[in-house]
Amino acid sequence: MKVDGRWRRTIEREGDHVIVLDQAVLPFEVRWLALRTLDDVARAIRDMHVRGAPLIGAAAAWGVALALREGHSLDHACTVLAATRPTAVNLKWALDRMRRASDAEAEAQRICDEDVAACQAIGRAGLPLLRDGINVLTHCNAGWLATVDWGTALAPIYAAHEAGMRVHVWVDETRPRNQGLLTAWELAQHGVPHTLIADNAGGHLMQQGEVDLCIVGTDRVLANGDVANKIGTYLKALAARDNDVPFYVAMPASSHDAASAVVEIEERSADEVRTVAGMLDGKPVRVRITEASVANPAFDVTPARLVTGFITETGVVTKP
Amino acid sequence: MKVDGRWRRTIEREGDHVIVLDQAVLPFEVRWLALRTLDDVARAIRDMHVRGAPLIGAAAAWGVALALREGHSLDHACTVLAATRPTAVNLKWALDRMRRASDAEAEAQRICDEDVAACQAIGRAGLPLLRDGINVLTHCNAGWLATVDWGTALAPIYAAHEAGMRVHVWVDETRPRNQGLLTAWELAQHGVPHTLIADNAGGHLMQQGEVDLCIVGTDRVLANGDVANKIGTYLKALAARDNDVPFYVAMPASSHDAASAVVEIEERSADEVRTVAGMLDGKPVRVRITEASVANPAFDVTPARLVTGFITETGVVTKP
Repeated sequence: MKVDGRWRRTIEREGDHVIVLDQAVLPFEVRWLALRTLDDVARAIRDMHVRGAPLIGAAAAWGVALALREGHSLDHACTVLAATRPTAVNLKWALDRMRRASDAEAEAQRICDEDVAACQAIGRAGLPLLRDGINVLTHCNAGWLATVDWGTALAPIYAAHEAGMRVHVWVDETRPRNQGLLTAWELAQHGVPHTLIADNAGGHLMQQGEVDLCIVGTDRVLANGDVANKIGTYLKALAARDNDVPFYVAMPASSHDAASAVVEIEERSADEVRTVAGMLDGKPVRVRITEASVANPAFDVTPARLVTGFITETGVVTKP
Repeated sequence: MKVDGRWRRTIEREGDHVIVLDQAVLPFEVRWLALRTLDDVARAIRDMHVRGAPLIGAAAAWGVALALREGHSLDHACTVLAATRPTAVNLKWALDRMRRASDAEAEAQRICDEDVAACQAIGRAGLPLLRDGINVLTHCNAGWLATVDWGTALAPIYAAHEAGMRVHVWVDETRPRNQGLLTAWELAQHGVPHTLIADNAGGHLMQQGEVDLCIVGTDRVLANGDVANKIGTYLKALAARDNDVPFYVAMPASSHDAASAVVEIEERSADEVRTVAGMLDGKPVRVRITEASVANPAFDVTPARLVTGFITETGVVTKP
């Protein structure tokens, strides 16, 4: 998709390294990071300079390729990378593919290209769920920035926008990390009309008939169809059900974990809740909003009974 | 309740003026504001230096008393004050009382004293719902800071704490204005154990069995038992129902609007969503987190079917 008018991917090979769009400073700054080593990649994933389940998988694949070039063993590379984020099944999936690959760099590039193709296919599959003038609510960022290109939950929205439909997106702020600001930023880059709302507002908007459709991404879909996604997804799914609003989960095949019956919920740093990033006098800063004790579960699990259907590369599936 | 170890009310007569605890700068600074004129009071309510439905009513009563001393007409005072916040029924209720009063200052003082007594009665009425070791979730700030003393939703918690019960409170951050930080601050002043969470987290905590009881306040209870309260209350009520967690609304009689079938939802400034207050280098600042288009409905309506019961001055009512 476009950044400052130029078509880019979120992760690209460039000479002997890879470059990624630094999502830790977006939307306040547009900065590209060069990742040259295994440690660079592990840090970028752990500190969320790259984020979003599919992009994490792609970055980890490049991490293995860079590690092998540094002389690290495949085992060491996979161990280090697997420890960066426990919830994303894409991470495990990408590392499994890299373990079996004969040419690591070619395989990393293939994982990226396949992700782009998968997201485009999700966009095509979800397109019939949209119509001209529709209002779609989304949570977190499951857009272009969370993948190599096009996004998952936002792919049908981009597809509709490209097809000339008028689509308006309600964007949940998604505290504590405010990934909704990323969603608003990437939609703005493409001219897709959108409105940012506090995470508290979506239920009220559904009661008022202002939401026609919810589409969210997922970090992992369990064997029974339960959906692990950003904390707060479950609350929106409850409100959608209470107001007869269809609730869809965009899911690349790589997010489906046919083996898992449970998911480990990552408890992230208290400082994510205690601080907020913003601009002051033209400079990006991080302010402290409280000294209180904090809990910060990063994901929740939306029961399959609340999910209307899954938008996958091969079509919309209404039974898990 | 205590501020810096000294027992205070949020609004107190002092000589020829009234002083209020400035909630626009809490929890970052503890500052008392002197209100000397009708305009002082109207501005303090409109700009949320005083906030919380019962406290707004008490402040408006003092506003009338100060206005009459300035030589304004009763009608003018009531018109100005009624326009400050459209949702709070307490505002209308307090102004109606002031219109009928023969001694405005005595009536304002009586409204304050009655509020304290009502909150204490709510605390006593709600106490049997709590038990040693309980985890209570609350949204927004319906504590001491929202009333003249003791609070509404927090009154049973303070009563339990004073009675020696161990009570732990999950405190919703309550974006966009972050009134949860006020709740955390006032609980901390009294030594009540609590944990601040993002608004997105409560549903997950209920799924995990970490919440035994929800208690929220209300700005207005409609004739049919529907509850207008801070935006996001509805989402927590849905999650409570989905997880069999009792959901109670603490309601002084003055919040019950037996005549209303609908409520006007206040749309507040976009800057509440676009900016966040915090501390930077020891100084309170307000940072800008986005330039996106924003919607900011301040309240939502929780249907009566999701409410387990109302905690009132005269006891717990399970039918509206």
